[in-house]
Formats: sequence, C-alpha cells, structure tokens
Amino acid sequence: MEIVFVLFDRITALDAIGPYEVLQRLPGAEVKFAGKERGQYRTDTKSLALVADYALAEVPRPDILVMPGGFGTRELVDDREVVDWVRAVHEHTTWTTSVCTGSLVLGAAGLLEGLDATTHWKELETLRKYGARPTLQRVVEQGKIVTAAGVSSGIDMALTLVDRIMGDFAAQAIQLAIEYDPQPPFDCGSPTKAPKEVVDFLSSLM
Amino acid sequence: MEIVFVLFDRITALDAIGPYEVLQRLPGAEVKFAGKERGQYRTDTKSLALVADYALAEVPRPDILVMPGGFGTRELVDDREVVDWVRAVHEHTTWTTSVCTGSLVLGAAGLLEGLDATTHWKELETLRKYGARPTLQRVVEQGKIVTAAGVSSGIDMALTLVDRIMGDFAAQAIQLAIEYDPQPPFDCGSPTKAPKEVVDFLSSLM
Repeated sequence: MEIVFVLFDRITALDAIGPYEVLQRLPGAEVKFAGKERGQYRTDTKSLALVADYALAEVPRPDILVMPGGFGTRELVDDREVVDWVRAVHEHTTWTTSVCTGSLVLGAAGLLEGLDATTHWKELETLRKYGARPTLQRVVEQGKIVTAAGVSSGIDMALTLVDRIMGDFAAQAIQLAIEYDPQPPFDCGSPTKAPKEVVDFLSSLM
Repeated sequence: MEIVFVLFDRITALDAIGPYEVLQRLPGAEVKFAGKERGQYRTDTKSLALVADYALAEVPRPDILVMPGGFGTRELVDDREVVDWVRAVHEHTTWTTSVCTGSLVLGAAGLLEGLDATTHWKELETLRKYGARPTLQRVVEQGKIVTAAGVSSGIDMALTLVDRIMGDFAAQAIQLAIEYDPQPPFDCGSPTKAPKEVVDFLSSLM
C-alpha cells in the first residue's frame, strides 16, 4: 500500500507528521514523501527542513494521498503542476486525504465540489470558493475523500482511516503504540470551546 | 529563547514534531534542530529524513532542550559524545525535556537520579537503570526536568511548558492555533485503558 505525503515550502510539519506516525504503522505501508522536485522543503517558520525522496512525477499511483497544509498552500492552490498531479492521482487512489489547509489544494483540483469538507477553522469560509460546504468537524468523511481540521487533527483522521482500512483492532494497536491518550492542559482547541479573547487574539494575528 | 531539538538516526518523528509545532509558536522562540553532525537523519522506518541545520557542538547553550525518542535511543544512551553534551547543556538550560524514550538519554546523562520520570509505557522499567522512579503519567515535572510519555505526549508536554513559561493565555492561543481538540476514535491510548488483547499484541511485537 503506497502512501504519499506531499511536501512543499512553508508546510506545517505536524500536518504531515501526525498522520505519518499513524499510517506508517499499517502493515504493508510503503510511505513516500514527495515534492515537486526531490530535495528539502522548509516549514512555515523555516526552522526545519523535511526531505522529499521523490518527485511528484515519480509517484503517479499512490493508494493513499495525504495533502498537508501550511502557509505554503496559498501558493500551491495556483500551482498548476501540483494541482494537476493531485487531480490525476485522485482518480486511482483508495483514499484522498488532507489536513488543515491541505483541503484547499484538493479544492483547487476540483475534488470538493458539492462535498462537505473541513480545514483550519480560520480558513473554513475559503472552502466555499471551491464549491465545498465548510464543516466545523474534526474529521469529515465523504466517500474516499477525508478532510481533517487544523494541524493536530491529522492524528485523529489517520486513526479513523486505519479503522476503515484494517478494522478497530489495528487502529487501537496503533493508537496505543503512539500512546495517544491526549490530555491537553486546556479545553480550548476549537473556536467553539476557546475563550472569546483567545479566538479574537488569534483571529487578529492570522 | 533558544530551543534545541536533538535529531539522530531512527528517531520517532512525532516525538520531535509534536513539541516543535507548539514551542516554535512561543514569542521569541529560536528553534534549532541539531544532530551529532549537520545533515539528514532518518526516522525509525527510514521513510523520512529530517534535517539538522546544526551540529550539537554548535549549540552549547540552549534555553530549552527537547530530547525526542525512537529506536535510535538504544544506541544513543551509549554514545559518549551525545550523553556528555546533554549533561553539559543541562547545567545551563531553563528547561530540559524529553519525549518517549528520549528520557533514557537524560537518564544515561545522570539527570534522572532520584527523580520521578516517564517514557513510552513499554520502556518504563528501563528508567530504574538510571535511578529514576518510573511514573505512568503523561507529563512528569520535576523542577526544570520535564519528561513525557510515548510519542504523541510531547504535544501535551509542550503546551504545559508554554503555560509555565508564558501563562495560560499563550498556551490556550497556541492550543487553538494548532486546533488541538483531540477526538481519538478509541479510548485506548494508555496500557491502563486499552483492551488486554491489544496490550498483549503490542507487547509481543515491540
């Protein structure tokens, strides 16, 4: 089972690494990180580089596509080469997935037309541009397309995917392997739960 | 505020990237990834390389040290150069932290003697070898040393750290920025919660 994670400049690292840490544990998983060209891609703050061992053109038939988000998606949605690649591989995938603003790239490829979809809460309305129905849910399943909310949600999305692919025993085993028993110090990880002043502060920043 | 993440071969990527995604958002954060030498380090399954922009010798005075885990720590605990570096930088850090089996490296450096500490649940007993008291908690604070449990726990550890450093508003803002509103599909992320057959299966594997 070939699983391709797309890398690009100004990616949000956790968008990719969350689902990677889950999906690489699927029996038979063949994980590949791919960018427009092979080489290093820097994260949003530039303080880390992740390495693409493959160029997109070298991985035309992934079984699972994971499209991460990050500030770089602002350019990516207008990058014909990437968007065309996404549209083409989607025809053959078993699952096409995104985390955070990665869904905007799926949208730009025309894959979300008429579907429920999610993204980072700050960008939800942008989904309408691509004909999608913005949905404030952590994981949104629409047939073989699965979109996840902001950054950390890719972990939940990937565990859900393992459950669909291999059943609950495998999903539970992987969840325990990565000791995913989250105990966030606050109950504020969604705009519907966070104090208004925190939401306002972030809204003014981002 | 200089924050150094240690990279090494056979690292578990999420151990580093979870806390990275949180701590890089601290105002004034200067994040550096460092390995024994500058260059690429491959994860446990080798399917991803992370890039160390710095050699350990180039970052002798981090304010915050994050020591991730992974199978590679088995060799790291016997690597005199790394262990000596950890011991030396700890004298000047404000916070010395670990995720997963990263705590074994802190232990090898003699930092956990007589302290409560945690690690991946499968390796808890190994902590005794370093004079630490194994503690099945997700985040264990002992003065300036903070150890976190397996893999995904580094996110909770880092948010706790932000709370200590900058207060709850900053921690809540970062939690909302990464939309950390975890909704794991199962309640099985700890050996005390997972079905016995899942725990037994993983125990036989790992």
